[in-house]
Amino acid sequence: MSSLDTLIQDLVIANRILAKEDVVDAYGHVSVRHPDNPKHFFISRSLAPELIERDDIVELDLAGEPVREERRSLYLERFIHAGVYELRPDVMAVVHAHAEDILPFGIAKATELRPVIHSGSFIGSSVPVWDIADKFGDTNVLVTNMAQARDLGKCLSQNNVALMRGHGFASAGRSLIEVVRMSVYLPRNARALMRARQLGGEIKYLSQGEIDARNRGYSAYSPETWRAWEYWATKAGCGHMLSKPDEKHEHGKK
Amino acid sequence: MSSLDTLIQDLVIANRILAKEDVVDAYGHVSVRHPDNPKHFFISRSLAPELIERDDIVELDLAGEPVREERRSLYLERFIHAGVYELRPDVMAVVHAHAEDILPFGIAKATELRPVIHSGSFIGSSVPVWDIADKFGDTNVLVTNMAQARDLGKCLSQNNVALMRGHGFASAGRSLIEVVRMSVYLPRNARALMRARQLGGEIKYLSQGEIDARNRGYSAYSPETWRAWEYWATKAGCGHMLSKPDEKHEHGKK
Amino acid sequence: MSSLDTLIQDLVIANRILAKEDVVDAYGHVSVRHPDNPKHFFISRSLAPELIERDDIVELDLAGEPVREERRSLYLERFIHAGVYELRPDVMAVVHAHAEDILPFGIAKATELRPVIHSGSFIGSSVPVWDIADKFGDTNVLVTNMAQARDLGKCLSQNNVALMRGHGFASAGRSLIEVVRMSVYLPRNARALMRARQLGGEIKYLSQGEIDARNRGYSAYSPETWRAWEYWATKAGCGHMLSKPDEKHEHGKK
Amino acid sequence: MSSLDTLIQDLVIANRILAKEDVVDAYGHVSVRHPDNPKHFFISRSLAPELIERDDIVELDLAGEPVREERRSLYLERFIHAGVYELRPDVMAVVHAHAEDILPFGIAKATELRPVIHSGSFIGSSVPVWDIADKFGDTNVLVTNMAQARDLGKCLSQNNVALMRGHGFASAGRSLIEVVRMSVYLPRNARALMRARQLGGEIKYLSQGEIDARNRGYSAYSPETWRAWEYWATKAGCGHMLSKPDEKHEHGKK
Repeated sequence: MSSLDTLIQDLVIANRILAKEDVVDAYGHVSVRHPDNPKHFFISRSLAPELIERDDIVELDLAGEPVREERRSLYLERFIHAGVYELRPDVMAVVHAHAEDILPFGIAKATELRPVIHSGSFIGSSVPVWDIADKFGDTNVLVTNMAQARDLGKCLSQNNVALMRGHGFASAGRSLIEVVRMSVYLPRNARALMRARQLGGEIKYLSQGEIDARNRGYSAYSPETWRAWEYWATKAGCGHMLSKPDEKHEHGKK
Repeated sequence: MSSLDTLIQDLVIANRILAKEDVVDAYGHVSVRHPDNPKHFFISRSLAPELIERDDIVELDLAGEPVREERRSLYLERFIHAGVYELRPDVMAVVHAHAEDILPFGIAKATELRPVIHSGSFIGSSVPVWDIADKFGDTNVLVTNMAQARDLGKCLSQNNVALMRGHGFASAGRSLIEVVRMSVYLPRNARALMRARQLGGEIKYLSQGEIDARNRGYSAYSPETWRAWEYWATKAGCGHMLSKPDEKHEHGKK
Repeated sequence: MSSLDTLIQDLVIANRILAKEDVVDAYGHVSVRHPDNPKHFFISRSLAPELIERDDIVELDLAGEPVREERRSLYLERFIHAGVYELRPDVMAVVHAHAEDILPFGIAKATELRPVIHSGSFIGSSVPVWDIADKFGDTNVLVTNMAQARDLGKCLSQNNVALMRGHGFASAGRSLIEVVRMSVYLPRNARALMRARQLGGEIKYLSQGEIDARNRGYSAYSPETWRAWEYWATKAGCGHMLSKPDEKHEHGKK
Repeated sequence: MSSLDTLIQDLVIANRILAKEDVVDAYGHVSVRHPDNPKHFFISRSLAPELIERDDIVELDLAGEPVREERRSLYLERFIHAGVYELRPDVMAVVHAHAEDILPFGIAKATELRPVIHSGSFIGSSVPVWDIADKFGDTNVLVTNMAQARDLGKCLSQNNVALMRGHGFASAGRSLIEVVRMSVYLPRNARALMRARQLGGEIKYLSQGEIDARNRGYSAYSPETWRAWEYWATKAGCGHMLSKPDEKHEHGKK
């Protein structure tokens, strides 16, 4: 397979992992930027992530429009992805989802979502909450155009995750593997914090130094990172689709 | 298949989805109004929703009685459906269930169930709580006759969902697809609200304008609505029973 | 099959249901009194309920000892069953288990477990908490002899369920079907009450009149009761072992 | 099989059980000390526990280094195991994991994790919380060298479990069967305590005398202990790998 084929295969895997790990259900989506053309990205047509196959992947531009004629329906909220890729050249992959246990942090004002467990460190030290109503008033709460997407992107700013009030979250990573991992541990970190608050007393968050140290040590294809990707893919029934980076390289040579 | 056959097939799918998504267990039921005869509706004989096949579906009238001779047992609470269809000509499908996470809102008096997440908007801005004891005193808490069903219907009024104290809920929609979706997201909205309250501070509910905007944008066969129905049916093991509206139309012509 | 064979088959089914419904795990057990000899009862040898087959069932007397030579290990806590059968001639089936969500009510003193949902009514209006330490001081917290079992039985008295502090519960019913159903809905009622308390405000419990009305309407082989038994057995993979009461009768005649 | 082969087989089973019971996910590991050489222990190479086979098991020394040439990646945190084996000659097996429901007790300062349910007694009367930051300042929160491992071991001291702030736990047992069982019931005990606190009022913990009585009665191959190991192994899909102690003995003779 060419490296582009492998990337699209990885995008299929990412969709299935997010479904299996309860980050997405019928709704929610993940995209990856075109490695050779930063103004394009790949995402599925409108379909539940668990059901996605290679042929469902489409190529969109930074206006959220398909670059080839496309008669199939597209995700209404594909603009979220376009908006983040436009504003953040460093971002290579984006997830938008409604994972249940992050929702309360976008609804209740008293508790800020911050990392309390080591696997939650990648959400970053600050997770802003974006409220579509602040700028756009009464909407259907969905991000359905570039103006809304850019406003969300502005709120996300240089952070890795933004909560969307009454709706879900958008997360941005340097690779598919990173953004999937971040999105899987985001609700787990949220649950740990919720329950710690119920136990009462002072909460011990990860320190900025700890978050920085973890970030410095992160590598998309380290044995530790790969271990989770391999495991989650296997659980999601697509272990046979996995291709390790070195294998990708060899395949790319053919 | 005729369009009536397709509708009954969809009713089987609806039962299986509600079971798979933990809205019903051994108990709870879903019905659909006869499209050509508004005084009749379809519902299963007394059977756990996950086990229902086409032949289990029976046709009842608005008194909750079978329109053909029927020797098999019927649901004790089929009157709930009859009562809602009688009072609400706009309603085409009804669910009654005991989904666990809505129960606390019918038991504790301090917190009203209202939409806090976008997918919960379809429950409507107000969810009344009906207490069978208010009018009928000490009963077995089940709705077993038309007088009780009409009292519940009166409480439901023009809303989409009514909670039933110590028992469950009744939801009413313009189509099977709508009422199933509403019933799936109802407990999720309930959990988000419960947990937001635990986090503390002011709760940000969906505004009336947001609820209205979402309702205006709703269509039973939009790609977004279909996406969930297709996904849930596939998860519930009946993807092969799916028939898209246009296919239905074509089949109907034959 | 003879009716005794059918009863033992039903005991196998009961074990599998309780495992599938998360009432028991590796531990916990269910028994049924011998229909023709009230001084004997049937229970499995020491084995996790999900793995039990017909040949694992043994016959014990009211001292908790096997009535035939038995070289296989028996449950340490089989005395719980003997104690309840001895003290309560009306009881035909007993469950002892550690279902997770009832545990807090035996540990925290502030909230009494009482029925708040209609399916929880069968636990009865009062659920006493038995603390083995009150009479026996520092033990391994298990009921390992008849003296302890009789003390638990005394606490259970005429109720249907007793909680055991830091340990679990014992439930007693008029039939296997009844005691299984009660044990499945017991943790669900516990969760509904816990969450209602978190929501705050006054709690609306089932009234004594409602509990009585439901109890009067209960029948072990009504279509409603059978519906759950059939569904749970099917989910637990032993739908093929089911025999309806009338079939039992016919089989019994052969 | 030789008894060493059987032990390694049991280590594979232990990994699969911990994965199935949600104690580990992609991360977390279990090890067993070499029965004939107390300065060596067995653990998997870097791989998700659910995917581990016999050939993935490696032999390490008490510095956490492989005793044979090994080109495959090893767990970053294998030092945790080395540290505990070094300091605690009585310990024969170690688990390190991030089971979700113990995390809040390492984050919130108000509530100490202690046994409240009989199956939780084996965690011991005191569960210290180790904070890597106390001695090592801002790290990536992982135990990646022997100095950190020894500090953790010092905190664990003669206890059975230590929580690791913002990270997980380390547990130590006299056998694989014991440490797996302790690790499975640890989060369950944590949940029971969390929920008891939510119910409010005085909490009834196990007394020291009860903990001692249970510990005195514990035996790694009693029918009660075996029952859970057999059940969990079967659930985890490796019932066919089980070998009972007496069978091990017979096999060993061949």
